[in-house]
Amino acid sequence: VVATPDQLVITQGVTQGIALACIALRSRGVERMALEDPSHRDEREIVARAGMSIVPVPVDDHGIDVTALRRTGAQAVLLTPVHQFPTGVLLSPERRAELLNWLGSGDRYVVEDDYDAELRYGGSPIGALQGLRPARVIYVSSASKSLIPALRLGWLLLPSEFVAEVAEHKRYADLGSPSLDQLAFADFLARGEFDRHLRRLRVPYRRRRSALVEALEEHLPDANLLGIPAGLHLAVELPGRDEDDLCRRALNASVNVTGLATHLIKARRPATLLIGFASNRPDVLREAVAQLAATM
Amino acid sequence: VVATPDQLVITQGVTQGIALACIALRSRGVERMALEDPSHRDEREIVARAGMSIVPVPVDDHGIDVTALRRTGAQAVLLTPVHQFPTGVLLSPERRAELLNWLGSGDRYVVEDDYDAELRYGGSPIGALQGLRPARVIYVSSASKSLIPALRLGWLLLPSEFVAEVAEHKRYADLGSPSLDQLAFADFLARGEFDRHLRRLRVPYRRRRSALVEALEEHLPDANLLGIPAGLHLAVELPGRDEDDLCRRALNASVNVTGLATHLIKARRPATLLIGFASNRPDVLREAVAQLAATM
Repeated sequence: VVATPDQLVITQGVTQGIALACIALRSRGVERMALEDPSHRDEREIVARAGMSIVPVPVDDHGIDVTALRRTGAQAVLLTPVHQFPTGVLLSPERRAELLNWLGSGDRYVVEDDYDAELRYGGSPIGALQGLRPARVIYVSSASKSLIPALRLGWLLLPSEFVAEVAEHKRYADLGSPSLDQLAFADFLARGEFDRHLRRLRVPYRRRRSALVEALEEHLPDANLLGIPAGLHLAVELPGRDEDDLCRRALNASVNVTGLATHLIKARRPATLLIGFASNRPDVLREAVAQLAATM
Repeated sequence: VVATPDQLVITQGVTQGIALACIALRSRGVERMALEDPSHRDEREIVARAGMSIVPVPVDDHGIDVTALRRTGAQAVLLTPVHQFPTGVLLSPERRAELLNWLGSGDRYVVEDDYDAELRYGGSPIGALQGLRPARVIYVSSASKSLIPALRLGWLLLPSEFVAEVAEHKRYADLGSPSLDQLAFADFLARGEFDRHLRRLRVPYRRRRSALVEALEEHLPDANLLGIPAGLHLAVELPGRDEDDLCRRALNASVNVTGLATHLIKARRPATLLIGFASNRPDVLREAVAQLAATM
């Protein structure tokens, strides 16, 4: 990212970051916000509460379909480029180029939710779109996935002409975020502990992810696994199955999975289970997949 | 107050509490919010951002003028009954009775900011209006004045039919307040430490308040002191003076005071300085008043 302190507004997590971004865009006359389809279902509600209408844009194996985005005529789009939620797809270099091209050809904005950027398990880090077009990208991130969601500590990196308005709106929404938590987090960052924490975190997460991938390959060999390179969950496509039925069976076997369908707007996708791996040990994950497979 | 856990929504301080109360009232068709005149200037902005218009109602030595409130036809009023901000006036028993009468005669609501209720220096505690009419009062409070503003920890006590909507709005605004801070505060409360803290706090605050009152009586004998029984500041009326001029003189003497006029909506009042005493030792307060008086 390209960041100076005077571009930053501290938020209560990504939810408030997106909400403030939407309010700022709406007050500049942006009436329609394009969303990835699928995307986190809460986003629709956050965008709608800011007074904008929602324009779904399909996601394929290369990320958002920029040609389809262009056709919508929407002036702004909310993206999760590094680990698309919920599919786990990485926005391909070609699509990034198309997106920058789209951005450059009018009064347009990207709201970039840099979701899971710190939790990549291989390859080089992915730069933020914000770093390439800071005047057109509102960057949103938080410590929720990488450190602890209970902190509710996030940050917005804003084009300079948005800063005063967003800070003012934050002021009248809650008079600012808790400063003790910010001071503790700043100290944690300054001492290099956050970087060390991330490096330490990736070791068990990588092990848990591998255990889940191997168990799925063994027990559900027809599954198509998405989102492996980063994050805290896999999207497990099971073509030809009924997603609701799969979720019911999982629940009956005491295996906690979510169906992807709840995050679809208009798109259709094969039956897909979202399976989190970060909070369970490898043996628990293997046992869960075996139980899940036994119910099918 | 009359409180059960299912009436509570935890907020980011009183600012978010009032903002959520306004949004809930607005969505029930309340279009105009009566405010005490004077009242904290931020309130006007919070109410306006919720899409409501503002109706000022004068405050006298007995608190808000309920006859004037009734004449406005407003359906809701935002009050600081225990220590009216910024005048420090206590809502008199007669006015409380009139207010409850007003509340009972239609589809009306009070938003009660229980400001400074824990920081009274004499007399018995003042019960909240909410305790008398829980179905018609939205109660707002926080740990900001009594413990630490940096926590941003507040709470709403809501009529039951408002709870689900307010909680949902809070969810899409910021996905909830930091839970570590809530757990720490709950532990602090459960162990009786919050009560002990308040009792301890009143000792130096009472001493500082007395030092300020005595110094003002000595150096500015024509001043009229309001708000003595509670809180963290005095309102010092200096009739016949020019408030802006007084503030400039104070600033030049390195004495940090605020003029009351910034909190007036339409009302007129004599020149009044708001002087905080909580964060300064008695000798500092005496010195400050002497310096202030010397500039006049």
